[in-house]
Amino acid sequence: MSLVPGIDEITDPDVLASLSHDEAEWAPVGRAVAAVRPRSTDEVAAIVAECARQGLAVVPRGAGTGLSGGANAVDDCVILDLSKMNTILEIDPGNMLCVVQAGVVNNDLKAAVAEHGLWYPPDPASAPWSTIGGNVATNAGGMCCLKYGVTRDYVLGLTAVAGGPAGDYGTVVRLGRRTTKGVAGYDLTSLFVGSEGTFGVVTEVTLRLRPARTEPTRTAVGAFGSLVAAGEAVAECTRRGLLPAALELMDKATLTAVEEWKHLGLSADAEALLLAEIDTPGAAGEAEAMAMADAFTAAGALWAESSTDEFEAEQLLAARRLAYPALERLGSVLSEDVCVPRSAIPGMLATIEAIGARHGVTIATIAHAGDGNLHPLIITPTGDDVARGAAQQAFEEILAEAIAAGGTVTGEHGVGLLKRGGMRRELSPEVLAMQSAVKQTLDPRNLFNPGKVVGLP
Amino acid sequence: MSLVPGIDEITDPDVLASLSHDEAEWAPVGRAVAAVRPRSTDEVAAIVAECARQGLAVVPRGAGTGLSGGANAVDDCVILDLSKMNTILEIDPGNMLCVVQAGVVNNDLKAAVAEHGLWYPPDPASAPWSTIGGNVATNAGGMCCLKYGVTRDYVLGLTAVAGGPAGDYGTVVRLGRRTTKGVAGYDLTSLFVGSEGTFGVVTEVTLRLRPARTEPTRTAVGAFGSLVAAGEAVAECTRRGLLPAALELMDKATLTAVEEWKHLGLSADAEALLLAEIDTPGAAGEAEAMAMADAFTAAGALWAESSTDEFEAEQLLAARRLAYPALERLGSVLSEDVCVPRSAIPGMLATIEAIGARHGVTIATIAHAGDGNLHPLIITPTGDDVARGAAQQAFEEILAEAIAAGGTVTGEHGVGLLKRGGMRRELSPEVLAMQSAVKQTLDPRNLFNPGKVVGLP
Repeated sequence: MSLVPGIDEITDPDVLASLSHDEAEWAPVGRAVAAVRPRSTDEVAAIVAECARQGLAVVPRGAGTGLSGGANAVDDCVILDLSKMNTILEIDPGNMLCVVQAGVVNNDLKAAVAEHGLWYPPDPASAPWSTIGGNVATNAGGMCCLKYGVTRDYVLGLTAVAGGPAGDYGTVVRLGRRTTKGVAGYDLTSLFVGSEGTFGVVTEVTLRLRPARTEPTRTAVGAFGSLVAAGEAVAECTRRGLLPAALELMDKATLTAVEEWKHLGLSADAEALLLAEIDTPGAAGEAEAMAMADAFTAAGALWAESSTDEFEAEQLLAARRLAYPALERLGSVLSEDVCVPRSAIPGMLATIEAIGARHGVTIATIAHAGDGNLHPLIITPTGDDVARGAAQQAFEEILAEAIAAGGTVTGEHGVGLLKRGGMRRELSPEVLAMQSAVKQTLDPRNLFNPGKVVGLP
Repeated sequence: MSLVPGIDEITDPDVLASLSHDEAEWAPVGRAVAAVRPRSTDEVAAIVAECARQGLAVVPRGAGTGLSGGANAVDDCVILDLSKMNTILEIDPGNMLCVVQAGVVNNDLKAAVAEHGLWYPPDPASAPWSTIGGNVATNAGGMCCLKYGVTRDYVLGLTAVAGGPAGDYGTVVRLGRRTTKGVAGYDLTSLFVGSEGTFGVVTEVTLRLRPARTEPTRTAVGAFGSLVAAGEAVAECTRRGLLPAALELMDKATLTAVEEWKHLGLSADAEALLLAEIDTPGAAGEAEAMAMADAFTAAGALWAESSTDEFEAEQLLAARRLAYPALERLGSVLSEDVCVPRSAIPGMLATIEAIGARHGVTIATIAHAGDGNLHPLIITPTGDDVARGAAQQAFEEILAEAIAAGGTVTGEHGVGLLKRGGMRRELSPEVLAMQSAVKQTLDPRNLFNPGKVVGLP
């Protein structure tokens, strides 16, 4: 079979299977008929047009690092693997922007723009592998969004292959602009960001950049006798108006798992650790780091200190980045992504512990704590169906409690397949009807990543 | 006539006329049948439901400070004056957010949150009068968006009275969240921001706040021998990665008009002045102010200096804020709002001067220069129809040149009525079709501010 002549196509069952899912191991996976690896917007347009002709669904994927099943195959779909569209088309220092193909890897982009004295801030933990297209699809966050915002804040414009009102499926549209501001028409660019490929296939992105950060980074670290105490410290920082570049939380289970795997020399005595990264230059940065440590102490830290020790900071940041794979070694991981108002963090952390205890499941919690974005990771022994059932109950209860606390079921991972039910509990029927109507309008044949986000479970 | 019992209604022709337009004096104004002044979301819902029953269009307005006719009456509409919905419902320092009714005045909100050590950055020149609802409708910018972003960057959630897929016209929906991050479903909140009341009536807004700025502000001022030289200096600042809190431009015509009106003691010798505001604290801020002055000098400033003289800075900022009314004293003002990539600023400023000369019209230029957002104000003697025709030709040519330079026809004022034609030249037919389809989906009866944005001229 050749969907479109001249375009790399994969039908080998093993390769196809590996391209048919992301890293949400608990999400269902359908059977794709083929995967294709286009190299240009025109090729994507040709593929989408042909899929539409044959009535095949199109499921775009980048690196497959997603955690909600958003890139998982649905039955009888074509997987559109954008990883070969990895060209940085333009870096424009005079306008502090760049234009990239969707398959460019986040860290590759960071490195390329750094050579021009520029910085692309969004830093999901997957940044060494994940693509800008995937980041745009999920509106990816990360550690530094506390101070610098999420992916949507950097997307000035994009090129997408669309259908429906834009014209026949396979029509190329350019949304947004190259200017820093602009209000000519509705903000379809922002609407496409976070839409998980359900409105069309994003093939190129115009990104806002910032001047590079030049100063060395300071850190403040606090160790706490309980998860809740660490949560109180985060709330205290917010009350004091402190806005570091990152404010991360790791619990003892996480620190232990990383240490047992990588032997970084981390002390895992405390029940929870808070790590703040400060990038304000000069004396103001020093004051900010000390103020963070003060807030930790005031909130009851076992110990807290500010430091310019880059080695120590790098160790802790490495631990944070390694948390997910380290915990995956312990069993099957069901990853949560709730986000609550910052004042609700202590209560939510207590609730998570209580839910874990009630269901007898192991929960390791890491968090972009400064944002209230908590990642309790529910770990079960591989192949233990009873534990798996308990984990799923715990998962649903955490979602319900996050909604009750005024939060959301997903802070940055996206709805994909795993959070469809949770989203339906979070949003009112009226808002869900608006969401579905917009999807129906922009993709009337339901060919773009069907079943995801507002697609019925 | 009483549309809805118990709700203040205005049918007095003079008052109705004054409520039937914003400050875009060149935009057409239709005949409203009545104006109402609701005090709550429920009252807005009742009014919208009754308007829908009678088939009357609903035109929302805040303070009427808009500059594109977005709040202008259309024939047989009801003007929904939201200025009495001016209650700050909640200030939540623990979550650095607030919830306000749409009619709260921008500066009133700034003052209220300042008492809690917080700051709401968006600062359109209209901030002493304009409402948050109007700011949300236009996605208002201002001076500090260069560093701190536009209104959309601060809207976490909103309450709107909608129709169509949400249910009967008059259905209340809550979009977005109270959390800093969240990706549960499509970002309808961002879509509503900047939609100029064409999807529904925004009645309440949940806004992200920032910690208050405590340090005194530094400034850098540069005087230039030509408008283009000032533009070169802006481009140079961007190339050097300088990102001050504001970078404003005023030309000689503007400075002269302000000085002749207010006698602030401004020197209007130079052809153009650049004013940078720096709020980075401490020594880093001092270095930043000096770097700005250096960039001005390197780009050929007649003179440039950095200063902590708050009086001088305040005089210049006052001049910037007074520019529009000062120029209005000289005649009928047609205000432009193009935004171009920053590297295109010098060329665009030269083009604007050439267009003014070619058509024999007076153009005074002020600009949020750091953003590439230029406000050439075309001034004609009141009642001079020949000059008016020339001004309109100049206006259209500036729009065309901005598009040709890779820019947009409106950076922050919105499409309203004045920029509908320009937007249609800027966006492709495919994108316009998507825009219209979204409008049709969310407002199938075309009752919410019809004829604006994608409404046909």
